[in-house]
Amino acid sequence: MDASKFKRCGYELVDWSIKYMETLDDRKPLPDVQPGWLWDVVPKEAPEKGEAFERIMRDLEPVVLHRMAHWQHRQFFSYFPAGNAWSSIMGDIFSNATGVNGTNWGSCPVCTELEIIVCDWCCKFLGMPKFFLSQYSCPESEGAGIIQHSASEAIFYSMMWAREDAVRKLRQRFPNKPRAILLNMLIAYCNNECHSCVERGSLMGAIRLRKLEPDNEGGIKADTLRNAIKQDMESGLIPFYHCAIIGSTGITSADDLMEVGEICEQYDMWLHCDAAYAGSSFACQEMRHCMQGYEYVWSTNVNTNKWMMCNFEASLHWVRYKSKAVDPMTGWEEEVYKTPYPPDLKHYAVPATRRFRAYKLWCVIRNYGVEGIRRYCRNHINLAKLFEKYVKRDDRFEVCGPVRFGLCAFRLKGLNEATSRLLDALNFSRRIHMVPSHFHEKVVIRFALCAEYANEEDIDVAWRVIDEFASVILREYEKEMANDVAMKNLYNKQHHHDELAAIRKDPKIEQEEREAEQTVAELKQRQQMRADGVIKGIDAVAVDGSWDRGDSNVFKEFDKYLHEHPEETEDKIYHDPNFPAKAQSMLHLHQIEDTVSHAPGTAPGGSGAPAPPAAPPTAVASRAATAAASAAASRAAVDDE
Amino acid sequence: MDASKFKRCGYELVDWSIKYMETLDDRKPLPDVQPGWLWDVVPKEAPEKGEAFERIMRDLEPVVLHRMAHWQHRQFFSYFPAGNAWSSIMGDIFSNATGVNGTNWGSCPVCTELEIIVCDWCCKFLGMPKFFLSQYSCPESEGAGIIQHSASEAIFYSMMWAREDAVRKLRQRFPNKPRAILLNMLIAYCNNECHSCVERGSLMGAIRLRKLEPDNEGGIKADTLRNAIKQDMESGLIPFYHCAIIGSTGITSADDLMEVGEICEQYDMWLHCDAAYAGSSFACQEMRHCMQGYEYVWSTNVNTNKWMMCNFEASLHWVRYKSKAVDPMTGWEEEVYKTPYPPDLKHYAVPATRRFRAYKLWCVIRNYGVEGIRRYCRNHINLAKLFEKYVKRDDRFEVCGPVRFGLCAFRLKGLNEATSRLLDALNFSRRIHMVPSHFHEKVVIRFALCAEYANEEDIDVAWRVIDEFASVILREYEKEMANDVAMKNLYNKQHHHDELAAIRKDPKIEQEEREAEQTVAELKQRQQMRADGVIKGIDAVAVDGSWDRGDSNVFKEFDKYLHEHPEETEDKIYHDPNFPAKAQSMLHLHQIEDTVSHAPGTAPGGSGAPAPPAAPPTAVASRAATAAASAAASRAAVDDE
Repeated sequence: MDASKFKRCGYELVDWSIKYMETLDDRKPLPDVQPGWLWDVVPKEAPEKGEAFERIMRDLEPVVLHRMAHWQHRQFFSYFPAGNAWSSIMGDIFSNATGVNGTNWGSCPVCTELEIIVCDWCCKFLGMPKFFLSQYSCPESEGAGIIQHSASEAIFYSMMWAREDAVRKLRQRFPNKPRAILLNMLIAYCNNECHSCVERGSLMGAIRLRKLEPDNEGGIKADTLRNAIKQDMESGLIPFYHCAIIGSTGITSADDLMEVGEICEQYDMWLHCDAAYAGSSFACQEMRHCMQGYEYVWSTNVNTNKWMMCNFEASLHWVRYKSKAVDPMTGWEEEVYKTPYPPDLKHYAVPATRRFRAYKLWCVIRNYGVEGIRRYCRNHINLAKLFEKYVKRDDRFEVCGPVRFGLCAFRLKGLNEATSRLLDALNFSRRIHMVPSHFHEKVVIRFALCAEYANEEDIDVAWRVIDEFASVILREYEKEMANDVAMKNLYNKQHHHDELAAIRKDPKIEQEEREAEQTVAELKQRQQMRADGVIKGIDAVAVDGSWDRGDSNVFKEFDKYLHEHPEETEDKIYHDPNFPAKAQSMLHLHQIEDTVSHAPGTAPGGSGAPAPPAAPPTAVASRAATAAASAAASRAAVDDE
Repeated sequence: MDASKFKRCGYELVDWSIKYMETLDDRKPLPDVQPGWLWDVVPKEAPEKGEAFERIMRDLEPVVLHRMAHWQHRQFFSYFPAGNAWSSIMGDIFSNATGVNGTNWGSCPVCTELEIIVCDWCCKFLGMPKFFLSQYSCPESEGAGIIQHSASEAIFYSMMWAREDAVRKLRQRFPNKPRAILLNMLIAYCNNECHSCVERGSLMGAIRLRKLEPDNEGGIKADTLRNAIKQDMESGLIPFYHCAIIGSTGITSADDLMEVGEICEQYDMWLHCDAAYAGSSFACQEMRHCMQGYEYVWSTNVNTNKWMMCNFEASLHWVRYKSKAVDPMTGWEEEVYKTPYPPDLKHYAVPATRRFRAYKLWCVIRNYGVEGIRRYCRNHINLAKLFEKYVKRDDRFEVCGPVRFGLCAFRLKGLNEATSRLLDALNFSRRIHMVPSHFHEKVVIRFALCAEYANEEDIDVAWRVIDEFASVILREYEKEMANDVAMKNLYNKQHHHDELAAIRKDPKIEQEEREAEQTVAELKQRQQMRADGVIKGIDAVAVDGSWDRGDSNVFKEFDKYLHEHPEETEDKIYHDPNFPAKAQSMLHLHQIEDTVSHAPGTAPGGSGAPAPPAAPPTAVASRAATAAASAAASRAAVDDE
């Protein structure tokens, strides 16, 4: 490929990228594919002779796109957002074209310096404590910001730094004990809602970790942490680290840093705060209440490739005392920090090489401005709250955990199995994609806003699909398990829902429900074939990171409990003071009646008092057009100079 | 930025990338810049309002490029190559545009599957053992290939896997000993020529590491490893891991895997082979002799972003038993591997997120074909050998270590300080960029081929600059240290060199030498100002990764020794059986006489019997034109379908 061909193919790929985003809704968010399918599509060996790039591009559709999950799809509500802003793509073209390596300051000065600058920029506009700033921005600071690949790495390194800091302190107290004995005395803590990477990091770092059970909101209570510390100290262990969370993977719960921070200070423990997802929203003043207590934090991370529209991999990582990060891994002494020469950024991580990652972040921040980042986060937060309203109005469902950021975790009331069946059917339909998680003993579905220009209509479409499939699943379930007393309450709610639907009589919804019935039947058939060994392999079930190390038996315990105590399925468990069951169904009826009186095709109202999603949807084509227009308007606003 | 602006700016950036590569020789390989310069150039805070992308692009030159090291420059011979093939840039545009996350198989099936496929492709064409293939390519294999960010990570993970494997085995033997005690019994080894990342990995992984002294060729002798093992076992330690190297960072030395492999097998130790740089050349049949003994290897890594033209970050990593990698970090049992469902690739590393890195590698391999990769490696190897010939013909210099791959490590004979002064002056001139390393007690200069389309003319230009600066430095040095007996021999060689130059009388070279004298004078002035405190901060000295943890006193020891034993500076030390001093200088004289009889402007001969670089250079402009033509021809050949 010579320059002239790169020009031609490069233009083509730029055009293709635009077309991909504009026609994304014609695709399904999740492919229907079995493990190993690609082996039958591509050659078994690398080609001996080079192939023209045109040919590689021709393979894009059949080889890659056809069986790809589309993270930017408007009905992709899985995991967390994965940024792909145009400005970020541009930044990476530049980094790739120059092909530089910021392995140390001298190897490419601008790599190191721009990275420090964008970290300082973010530190300031996210309202992070000043002690994370570089010496250039704040001469009295001893901290540093760097860009790691991922939150998992940031968390792992913070544990290593804390471990080495603790060992150094212990060596002073116990100069005669060997290092291994000192290491063996250490214990770290984390909220059980933390990502599984904390546990993996502890395994890699040979660290003893105790996962603490959060409260009903998903945060760690001061007493929980304090009691664990006391108990472990009595056993001769030395607490040295706690990983707090703001915006957990499962339900975006948050720890109160004031509570855990005070304790960490009291026991001289390193407090890390994982704000991988939620941290971007700190750009908004109204979200700063979550940050109370950040002055206790020793290190923290925020993924700009999650909720700041930046492409992988760009996870901001700050440390309060850079010497505590760099010294133990280099054998250096603090001496080196007295010069204005920044320590090479590679000393904060395992990799020695360094892609020029800062450039794309620099492009994204400048192109959107802090204002644009705020607008983007607020839109997701508002839409998550809108979705929460829909869930709360439907008394078959319950919301799990507080909805503070761009995610709402919800479930069908009753047995976990009902929620799992619902999610399986939804994903099998490929009309929407969501992944499960768990909160305490309950299986939940994570509804995470991902598309950059998500809007209310997307929420309405999603809710309608969920609503329809819930009806089908519950009716099916009742047929199978009519005598299941644990689910009786939920069947009654479904009957009530059916009565309301009968009043409304929307032919479009009726048609979609029939299609959903068909989908559920197909899924059951597929599952039976798998059980009979006709289809080999495991189904393409998408599970979340936090789910990995979960013990599925734990979740069955809840179902077992409900079967043994069917009386608990009444509102004693589901009771929500804001939406008592009766008021809820009244509200539901009222809203539906209100809606059916409107003309079909009316767009739902504003976020202040949104109309329910029951409004008959506009056709897919026109929806796409509206979405595209809205996206164009929104994108245009970003460039507004 | 909306789609239409992305189209416009995207086209512009594609054009810009081409122009950047075509006009790269008008820039200097290394910028002249002091730490912190960027703080005076960019705003202190992120902009509140978004900026048009055109404005961000206007800042490319003054903010970024002006003070960037240019890794693709034809006179950039530092570190190792950093790939930026057009096809790789294209691959990343696609990955970024779709913005997917291959966190697990289900989250984007093609991410996982294509990664496994390209790893299998590479495993095959690099001649790696079959046990590294996936089950899809080789049903009886229990191995796996993945793409990590960097060699450092691959090495770190391999140490962790080995550690956990060892601990599991030890637990069976000593069921009553606590884990920490078992950990404390373990000891790992590596060649002292290994990258500093091995030591850093051992610190992170709480592993005791012993670095072994290599032989004169930079490899570990069987006896060295065996003796260390025996000694440590007598002290009650348990050897569990050895990190071998093929293509070390400093001098691209290589271990004999047959020798160390047998010992590792005997003591049941995990053998990792770091082939980060050199591994790409295994595509060439004639390089496979380096791979003898690979059947003993349990894990290995090859960076396609080093010597396979792929952009960061793409480091191939293979493991022989995938269960040994995945189980200890997940708590899984081998059961899971019996299904055809591949284990999620995130389980082989710390990060949970996964950029679609395989796609760019897929593009590069298909576009060049294995043939193109071979052609590229061979060109670098031939040029390194050509450079080696130039060094060997000049009896002021010596080659350090064998030249097998695309690097030649060399130095001025005599004191380390002379070589350091030479390199400082060369880098200060910005006419060429190289970094130092060390081999045993000697400071060496690494001449690493980096530019994709490097050619013989680049080597000639580089050698002429080195030759001229060596003359200036040695004459300067003699003025200062006329009575330094340790250097007397070298001064004599310089006098001889000057006599030859007087015979030749090339006005162009004389002019360039005068400029070099000026540069050296400026450098001395700058150093004096720094010593006087007029200039603050540390100079922008580029050092190599392997240099990091080196103790500078070690290198002074050699100088001290030579001062105390000036008789050693005679050919007893420099003796090279292939090029005895006399024959060498005769050859030198002969070649020069041969050349001056040719017309000026003649290009040097082929690699078989290359003419020396003393041929008067063509003008810079015409050089660039020749290089561009050669590059175009070479690039075009790649697309040959």
